[in-house]
Amino acid sequence: MSLDDTWFTEIHGDAGTAFSLKAKAKLHEEQTPYQKIEIYETEGFGNLMVIDGCTMLTTRDNFIYHEMMSHVALFTHPSPKRVLIIGGGDCGTLQEVLKHDSVEIVQQIDIDEAVTRLSKIYFPELCASNDDPRAELMFIDGIQWVKDAEENSYDVIIIDSTDPVGPAEGLFSKDFYQECYRVLSENGILVQQSESPLIHMNILRDMHNAMKGAGYSEAKTAFFPQCIYPTGWWSATMACKGGSFNGFRESDSANKNFSTHYYNCGIHHGALAVPEFFYQEIKG
Amino acid sequence: MSLDDTWFTEIHGDAGTAFSLKAKAKLHEEQTPYQKIEIYETEGFGNLMVIDGCTMLTTRDNFIYHEMMSHVALFTHPSPKRVLIIGGGDCGTLQEVLKHDSVEIVQQIDIDEAVTRLSKIYFPELCASNDDPRAELMFIDGIQWVKDAEENSYDVIIIDSTDPVGPAEGLFSKDFYQECYRVLSENGILVQQSESPLIHMNILRDMHNAMKGAGYSEAKTAFFPQCIYPTGWWSATMACKGGSFNGFRESDSANKNFSTHYYNCGIHHGALAVPEFFYQEIKG
Repeated sequence: MSLDDTWFTEIHGDAGTAFSLKAKAKLHEEQTPYQKIEIYETEGFGNLMVIDGCTMLTTRDNFIYHEMMSHVALFTHPSPKRVLIIGGGDCGTLQEVLKHDSVEIVQQIDIDEAVTRLSKIYFPELCASNDDPRAELMFIDGIQWVKDAEENSYDVIIIDSTDPVGPAEGLFSKDFYQECYRVLSENGILVQQSESPLIHMNILRDMHNAMKGAGYSEAKTAFFPQCIYPTGWWSATMACKGGSFNGFRESDSANKNFSTHYYNCGIHHGALAVPEFFYQEIKG
Repeated sequence: MSLDDTWFTEIHGDAGTAFSLKAKAKLHEEQTPYQKIEIYETEGFGNLMVIDGCTMLTTRDNFIYHEMMSHVALFTHPSPKRVLIIGGGDCGTLQEVLKHDSVEIVQQIDIDEAVTRLSKIYFPELCASNDDPRAELMFIDGIQWVKDAEENSYDVIIIDSTDPVGPAEGLFSKDFYQECYRVLSENGILVQQSESPLIHMNILRDMHNAMKGAGYSEAKTAFFPQCIYPTGWWSATMACKGGSFNGFRESDSANKNFSTHYYNCGIHHGALAVPEFFYQEIKG
């Protein structure tokens, strides 16, 4: 069966796969100084944001990604107060981070203001907490920001970026991880979206090595489904500055005072289970 | 970006999504008395079997499905000796079941001999255990087989079928679950592939209700990634005849004397974690 031109398709070249969403209408298209952003209304997944031809998020399934990018790291840190988000301009991760009462400040640095401007229009439910007094949104270069930041500035750094090509490439490097290490507090946690375990093991292996090479004492990957990303199976990799990943704040997670749609204490546990092939490749 | 005719595409109508694999060549096409089977050689996923337009399995990613359809149920049962597989003609699940030393007999009933005949040619690695003396392959109607079977015939019944439309529809009914209940031994386990939690909650809800309505004391869903199936997130639902799902044989799982590529004891635990929305919908 072939797809007519009412479908938006992303081809995953290396894997020889493609994922498509049937579109009702193209709502917006814009070339920013950094990237091309398109917004579609889809038939089954609500609105869709596409950046440089890659599906970024839909109304229907973004909850899994945003909850897993935030709560796993935040319930792992003993008391996250100061959080930095690099990327994340759609504000979905920000909203989840702000659900944690311990958090006193969240700085979100996305290089492209258009992502947030368009998210406010087409994904308003993700931007409902943008006016929280603890939130500070900046549209500048995240790599430079971290370079300029002082030591011991953040408890958790979340790298919620596009794939490691184009503008986000520098966010997947040992140099950048070292700068993050420097500005993290003792026992601070770095967490980064880390692609598909099924087809991007090279990226995951490089990331684990680069994190350890940058001085982090341990790196750990969490796995979760994400329908609209290549293979439908995605991951986030955490690295800790000192100490080790000895569990997480289970009781706080089990008794959280906010609602989620995917994440809970059991899911947190389950996401850290390491598939046999992954263990063989990464060796813990 | 649009796909030219070198791609095989499956459209998931209700969800408004589609998944495509780039094909190098079509290796085979056959209309059997039951269904149309196509085999492709793909660019990135090895060989692909398609039944009635739906992707069934690929060389690259079938391991997750087959391991999860077999080991979760078999390590949950205290001592699985007699196993029945309904469907499963590609023999991937059969091969995993035969890895368990406790198993004395596995009967596999697929209505269509062509699935196994073609699997032997295009997925020979899945058929490597077909000559195991404990394995018995039959190409007859599975529903009739169960109807004719005696009480207390099986410890585990695995329903490894296509979607609940067409030939497999009767395998998703309360009537069939009742017949399975009758032929299961005390503490026997039924397990069935149960579609995508993201877009098939209606099927999952109906299945849980039908299983309980058929007399099973408890039903429990395991979740796992499966790239080539709709949304890339799949599930298998178990029902037990008597007793309850109080854990599984963890020590046996952790010390299994066979290799797997996805499944292990931690993954077993993790797969049973219930996403928040699923729990809300199914209520345990």
